[in-house]
Amino acid sequence: QSSTMIQPRFMRVRSALFRESMAEFLGTFVLLLFGCSAAAQVKTSRETKGQFLSVNMSFSVGVMSAMYLTKGISGAHLNPAVTLSFCVLGQVPWSRLVPYSLSQILGAYTASALVYFVYYDAIMEFSGGVLTVYGANETASIFATYPSEYLSLSASFLDQVVGTGTLLLCILCLGEKRNTPAPEQLVPAIVAAIVLGISMSMSGNCGAAINPARDLGPRLFSLTAGWGTEVFTCYNYWFWVPVVAPLVGAVLGTLIYLIFIEWQLPDHPPEDPHTESSFSNKPIPSVTWDSKEELKEASQQI
Amino acid sequence: QSSTMIQPRFMRVRSALFRESMAEFLGTFVLLLFGCSAAAQVKTSRETKGQFLSVNMSFSVGVMSAMYLTKGISGAHLNPAVTLSFCVLGQVPWSRLVPYSLSQILGAYTASALVYFVYYDAIMEFSGGVLTVYGANETASIFATYPSEYLSLSASFLDQVVGTGTLLLCILCLGEKRNTPAPEQLVPAIVAAIVLGISMSMSGNCGAAINPARDLGPRLFSLTAGWGTEVFTCYNYWFWVPVVAPLVGAVLGTLIYLIFIEWQLPDHPPEDPHTESSFSNKPIPSVTWDSKEELKEASQQI
Amino acid sequence: QSSTMIQPRFMRVRSALFRESMAEFLGTFVLLLFGCSAAAQVKTSRETKGQFLSVNMSFSVGVMSAMYLTKGISGAHLNPAVTLSFCVLGQVPWSRLVPYSLSQILGAYTASALVYFVYYDAIMEFSGGVLTVYGANETASIFATYPSEYLSLSASFLDQVVGTGTLLLCILCLGEKRNTPAPEQLVPAIVAAIVLGISMSMSGNCGAAINPARDLGPRLFSLTAGWGTEVFTCYNYWFWVPVVAPLVGAVLGTLIYLIFIEWQLPDHPPEDPHTESSFSNKPIPSVTWDSKEELKEASQQI
Amino acid sequence: QSSTMIQPRFMRVRSALFRESMAEFLGTFVLLLFGCSAAAQVKTSRETKGQFLSVNMSFSVGVMSAMYLTKGISGAHLNPAVTLSFCVLGQVPWSRLVPYSLSQILGAYTASALVYFVYYDAIMEFSGGVLTVYGANETASIFATYPSEYLSLSASFLDQVVGTGTLLLCILCLGEKRNTPAPEQLVPAIVAAIVLGISMSMSGNCGAAINPARDLGPRLFSLTAGWGTEVFTCYNYWFWVPVVAPLVGAVLGTLIYLIFIEWQLPDHPPEDPHTESSFSNKPIPSVTWDSKEELKEASQQI
Repeated sequence: QSSTMIQPRFMRVRSALFRESMAEFLGTFVLLLFGCSAAAQVKTSRETKGQFLSVNMSFSVGVMSAMYLTKGISGAHLNPAVTLSFCVLGQVPWSRLVPYSLSQILGAYTASALVYFVYYDAIMEFSGGVLTVYGANETASIFATYPSEYLSLSASFLDQVVGTGTLLLCILCLGEKRNTPAPEQLVPAIVAAIVLGISMSMSGNCGAAINPARDLGPRLFSLTAGWGTEVFTCYNYWFWVPVVAPLVGAVLGTLIYLIFIEWQLPDHPPEDPHTESSFSNKPIPSVTWDSKEELKEASQQI
Repeated sequence: QSSTMIQPRFMRVRSALFRESMAEFLGTFVLLLFGCSAAAQVKTSRETKGQFLSVNMSFSVGVMSAMYLTKGISGAHLNPAVTLSFCVLGQVPWSRLVPYSLSQILGAYTASALVYFVYYDAIMEFSGGVLTVYGANETASIFATYPSEYLSLSASFLDQVVGTGTLLLCILCLGEKRNTPAPEQLVPAIVAAIVLGISMSMSGNCGAAINPARDLGPRLFSLTAGWGTEVFTCYNYWFWVPVVAPLVGAVLGTLIYLIFIEWQLPDHPPEDPHTESSFSNKPIPSVTWDSKEELKEASQQI
Repeated sequence: QSSTMIQPRFMRVRSALFRESMAEFLGTFVLLLFGCSAAAQVKTSRETKGQFLSVNMSFSVGVMSAMYLTKGISGAHLNPAVTLSFCVLGQVPWSRLVPYSLSQILGAYTASALVYFVYYDAIMEFSGGVLTVYGANETASIFATYPSEYLSLSASFLDQVVGTGTLLLCILCLGEKRNTPAPEQLVPAIVAAIVLGISMSMSGNCGAAINPARDLGPRLFSLTAGWGTEVFTCYNYWFWVPVVAPLVGAVLGTLIYLIFIEWQLPDHPPEDPHTESSFSNKPIPSVTWDSKEELKEASQQI
Repeated sequence: QSSTMIQPRFMRVRSALFRESMAEFLGTFVLLLFGCSAAAQVKTSRETKGQFLSVNMSFSVGVMSAMYLTKGISGAHLNPAVTLSFCVLGQVPWSRLVPYSLSQILGAYTASALVYFVYYDAIMEFSGGVLTVYGANETASIFATYPSEYLSLSASFLDQVVGTGTLLLCILCLGEKRNTPAPEQLVPAIVAAIVLGISMSMSGNCGAAINPARDLGPRLFSLTAGWGTEVFTCYNYWFWVPVVAPLVGAVLGTLIYLIFIEWQLPDHPPEDPHTESSFSNKPIPSVTWDSKEELKEASQQI
């Protein structure tokens, strides 16, 4: 009876795509819940309850938590740029790209809304009730990212390409058995550390979105919640940069990974007793983010 | 002879409930010893010996240490809201709820007393000997949490619901073999990182108690130690919020976890060679925080 | 030939005690090298190159590094209070207590001397060439710990008892198979996190020495290096507190661990298939910091 | 077809030396990309988007990421001083020393160039368009390290010897099975923590380069990018110190490791069931950074 309550068969969503989309929704929700809450706390407390570093660290914890929560169901991409890379690598079917991306954007939007309600009083107190994009009392940057005044368009595009490229370059190697893989059960923590590193070093120009969903979802929310159309029109319609550039950067980072590392690895992991057998013709599993991924994909065809 | 001294059979408490209550007492004691000491150090040194972040990090180390210390005996709940969730999930018998909670509150109370004695001189120096709840020299916040001036009651309730819900959502998945579990021996460190994330991002409004024992125990201590009844009456008897709202939040977070993750997982972990066997009728182990938990519970029936 | 250079048999010290003492010397040297360097860097840069937190974190990295370096040889106590606890527990022969302690003090002294030479120019620049114990330009606290002005003797004694007791309480459980042990190969990192927690929360009063060697070695160095006898006479000969109180605290923390945890654990670890066999009479291995410890001890009798 | 795209055999570089040099290039590129980006972010934001600590932490994440990325191919030395030590230990053939070092310097140079382009607008804004080595608006220290004004030449040489010696002393033990090794799959994270510790404690004098490539590559870049010859001539041609002293320090640190630890360890790891067999004559594997290293080296002879 108790176990029936806990695992009711009829509650399982039949569509694998829908189950995975729910997971991507929840994972991106958790990521942004941590990240935007920290941004709200640091901003509205005028850095008395945290600093720039705590926002970086909170996003990092959000990545780790979201990955433990959803990696077994959807792979925990949490980022359309990551999904795109896996599609390019042939690890995830292209049909997943749009539903995953929409779920991620929706998760980010929903988290922004919850952060808004939790920190509503603090935001009103801090801003004097005027929700703006510019000025010392601006609060729009709690949600979406905005460029520094001095930043040219091309530099901000390059910034997002490099940031997202670094992300993919550094995470694609973590599951590769032929290289020096991270412990499978600690991949979420390692990825979190990498995201922390990127946040601390590549957010100086325009906030290190490196994730179209992380930026577009909260920006859409701030549009609907009272910050006005300026969230999209400001800085000469800059909003498209953290949407488009991460996609370019992810593919570039993936390509650099393939050229420098993946294609240079031996055919078999060193543990394999048949490493020296040069007559092996069986197809070799290549980039493996997670072996469960393939299992899952295979089972979805049934 | 030496081993007799170290493991005297007669020193083992016969009642499993009492042994577990001792563990919950000690674990919550350790959690608050780290956390309140750090709050005292940062407050009384006027942030010259640490900052807001060090308080967050000390609570996090406290969680980790307390879990390594007591998880094998009582499960290391350290928090009535966590115990309640496990009761709801059928993992812990309902008869444990009250004794565990009382032990946790008592552990928090005792730790507060010890912190008070260790930092007595510093508190007197800082406060000029006047123990108050309000003002620049207040010291009550070393022990219990208090809301920001601007915060409405409903927002503070929502804040505690969301914080505790996030905690449960993020920790319930860590032991689930059918998902991507954390390394069993590193669960205390991962939970500590999650608590750090919540402390850095969801403590802006009212201090992220997310734990009735962590808040009520120290508040009771500060009542008896000279801060007066104001610790309970201030902010219009606000003290009940971090006692009640975490319980609501924990159950809500558990429910969201079940709906989005637990109920969507396959019946067997992917490692199981019989994964594809669709005729299996044997009951499936569900939410498993820790497999030792069941073993322990089973052995307690004897 | 190459392997002869790398592993020359004749270079192995024949006396196990001397090998272990060398390890304790080197380990405590590394601990203090990290810790005092960080203190010198933060102090002489007037907090522009680090803050209080970086000193805490550097001591923590020092603990981890020293443990990986020497745990396989001497157990990596790095602290006479830890050695004393293991003697009390019967894990380490009492004959080790004095040689280990002297090696630890000597290692701390030597590290202080090296830090002094590396930061000589910076210390002279900062202090204007006057090495003092008091005042805004004091530099003695780079090496040993000193109490806050407001602190009473009894409070500082309690402070060191509680800090060291917490250390022992939290680390003794990490290797206990019948509880929830930390991963054996990550014990140095977990201990480092615990030391970080203590440094962040229990150093407000008098610097969290919690280690007679960590305090006495550097204090002796600063005596010989030009700070004068004031390093011992100041604050009414306070220097004995971080030498004596940690020993008391370590034994107390060990006792609390035994009473609340060790003596309450089941006879066998849960993994043991014979857990339910209640007729087992064989002696049970008790507190196990590290199973290699016993192996080592055993082999030393030969 | 898909797997052909991902693992095209013809893309594998035939020369093992060239593959490894590519890996050292990419690894050092990633290390400097994280590190110099963080330095640029903290400097140009005038510490509003990070502090000294975030630069330390970013270099640390860079080390970890670069090691996961390249350790399986080249051993992830990322530092000529580390390569030199492995040559001295007989783990890496001497013929690798120059190609590895040049690849590392080139990787550091390339990363500096990318950081310059990403932060070009910020650097121009911060410096007013004048790229200088001295003064409050200097930006040369984003790339290479420079000594403090007060520092004597001999002290800066000692500083770099001690820093690099500490690095080697602390990392050489991590893979030694006869001691207490770190988890093989977490060595990159442990090394990252050690590098963080050194950066926080031994960078007060002259920036803790402890790596000729990390310093020379970016210095060459800043020479070519407009900072002028002063980057080499300043402080009386100081630039050679972080190039030469780390090499001396690495060999000294290695020697101390051998004398105090390596040569004192038992012949076999404790796990070995034949530990007590004193008649074994087979050659004993000594310092093992990574067992894959030997496999790789062996396979390269074919």
